[in-house]
Amino acid sequence: MPFGVNLSFCVKRWVTPELWAPLVREDLGLDLVQFSFDLVDPAWPDVLLDRLAGDLRKHARAHGLTIHSAFIGLAHYTFNQLLHPDPEVRDVAEAWMKRAYRFAASAGIARVGGPLGAVASRRDGREAEQLSAVDYEDLIARMHRLAGSARAEGVSELYVEPTPMRREWPWTVDQALKMADDVKGAEIPWKFCLDWGHGTFEPLYGRYRAGMEAWCAALGDRIGVIHIQQTDFQYDRHWDFTESGRVDPAAAAALQRANGLAATPVFLEVFYPFERDDSSVIDAVKRSAALLQPVFA
Amino acid sequence: MPFGVNLSFCVKRWVTPELWAPLVREDLGLDLVQFSFDLVDPAWPDVLLDRLAGDLRKHARAHGLTIHSAFIGLAHYTFNQLLHPDPEVRDVAEAWMKRAYRFAASAGIARVGGPLGAVASRRDGREAEQLSAVDYEDLIARMHRLAGSARAEGVSELYVEPTPMRREWPWTVDQALKMADDVKGAEIPWKFCLDWGHGTFEPLYGRYRAGMEAWCAALGDRIGVIHIQQTDFQYDRHWDFTESGRVDPAAAAALQRANGLAATPVFLEVFYPFERDDSSVIDAVKRSAALLQPVFA
Repeated sequence: MPFGVNLSFCVKRWVTPELWAPLVREDLGLDLVQFSFDLVDPAWPDVLLDRLAGDLRKHARAHGLTIHSAFIGLAHYTFNQLLHPDPEVRDVAEAWMKRAYRFAASAGIARVGGPLGAVASRRDGREAEQLSAVDYEDLIARMHRLAGSARAEGVSELYVEPTPMRREWPWTVDQALKMADDVKGAEIPWKFCLDWGHGTFEPLYGRYRAGMEAWCAALGDRIGVIHIQQTDFQYDRHWDFTESGRVDPAAAAALQRANGLAATPVFLEVFYPFERDDSSVIDAVKRSAALLQPVFA
Repeated sequence: MPFGVNLSFCVKRWVTPELWAPLVREDLGLDLVQFSFDLVDPAWPDVLLDRLAGDLRKHARAHGLTIHSAFIGLAHYTFNQLLHPDPEVRDVAEAWMKRAYRFAASAGIARVGGPLGAVASRRDGREAEQLSAVDYEDLIARMHRLAGSARAEGVSELYVEPTPMRREWPWTVDQALKMADDVKGAEIPWKFCLDWGHGTFEPLYGRYRAGMEAWCAALGDRIGVIHIQQTDFQYDRHWDFTESGRVDPAAAAALQRANGLAATPVFLEVFYPFERDDSSVIDAVKRSAALLQPVFA
């Protein structure tokens, strides 16, 4: 299956394609990339975005890189996006997504994804099991509108990334299946991005219910892309594979094959503390790519 | 010394003043707050920002809260701000800061701070010990312009938060002293915000050189505000005080007193994984505030 790297490890470090393209191609030996909106904020002015999109295209081509998709990073995820309690803040997030589609398309990137949003917390700390019907309908309406905008900008596929918390949506397989039904007929397809640190989070799903097996089996070809990371299933760690954890890359590849996902691309998505030194980050990502590439080849 | 809480623990959870004001006042028992730009992005449209600033003022007043300052959060810190390799991206960051000042002033917040920026990394992982003279002069020129903008918007004091990495600036006491000299005479004062997880980071500063003692002694009254967190000095953890670590709150308070900083406000700044459940976050922040408040009183 196609294997590549999400540019999460480049955030605040190798921030321009002049810096990350040779690093990915020559040092990691990869030719498939998932771009991160932590490197370019779609809220930046159009003139700047147009120039940055041109740079991205140029360096990707020069280094023989395919940019499969562009994903929401930590910066935009920090806000509550399409489920913020204030409808006008939701509108801002929807407008941001349209700008993200425009930037992606102008950079030659055909697919865009990420988490959708988070409701606010209650003062007593109780977390509702269900999104209210009003919030859910608003979210689905926005997803339909976003598919229209994305198509108009030249994007061909969108991804929802389920995250392991009650405040975001969807967080269970059943919620994801219902959402898939409810966005059927959108102008371009909404598919799912699974992540090895999300479906496996035991504090939410319980020790025995947690697992990627159920997500893969239930969603099947509605899965468009997969994030791999090393983790202990106790938090969404986004460790690289020099750390020990409970994700077995060979089992991950076998699971994809068993569920008809042999052609579904897999991206290593790892984050490092900002204060960690650059050379140890390069070394750890290099060793992780070398370990994973033959497993998914 | 005045003790309060940075709203970092509210990010993506208690995101409106209607939610965080009663939590801080009644549950944590605090009346002093440092606002976080992870709750309101100054890039949002003016009409929305004006309404949110009005809400903030109203709820702060209703709950008897003083908002000492507003600080850059993780979302904006994710980008390279005023030291991005692309001068136009630096311009965008400078414009963002001006909007941040405007929002703060309109919300009744008189002081604004945060880290300044990060240079890009090299492909070989080597980190320069020095900022280039050109980058440094550009940064100082921007700081002077920002002080002018801040004053024009109605802000009275600005803070630089040194971070423990070679890519950001300043990261040593000497660099901070030089910067303080170079921004002398700015239209409003630039002071420093120290953080207990920054000056103590042993992988950068070494086991024996690391420490807040040197920072406090050298910078003295150039220090305008202090962030406290629990940490192991091996990373910038931003743990709360239910975790064990190497920060001793009583020693921290004594250090302030010994350096003439008895009136310098201290803010608890803690971050949690997004997937951690709300009720354990409230409980941990409550217990930390209860432990720290009498120490700094």
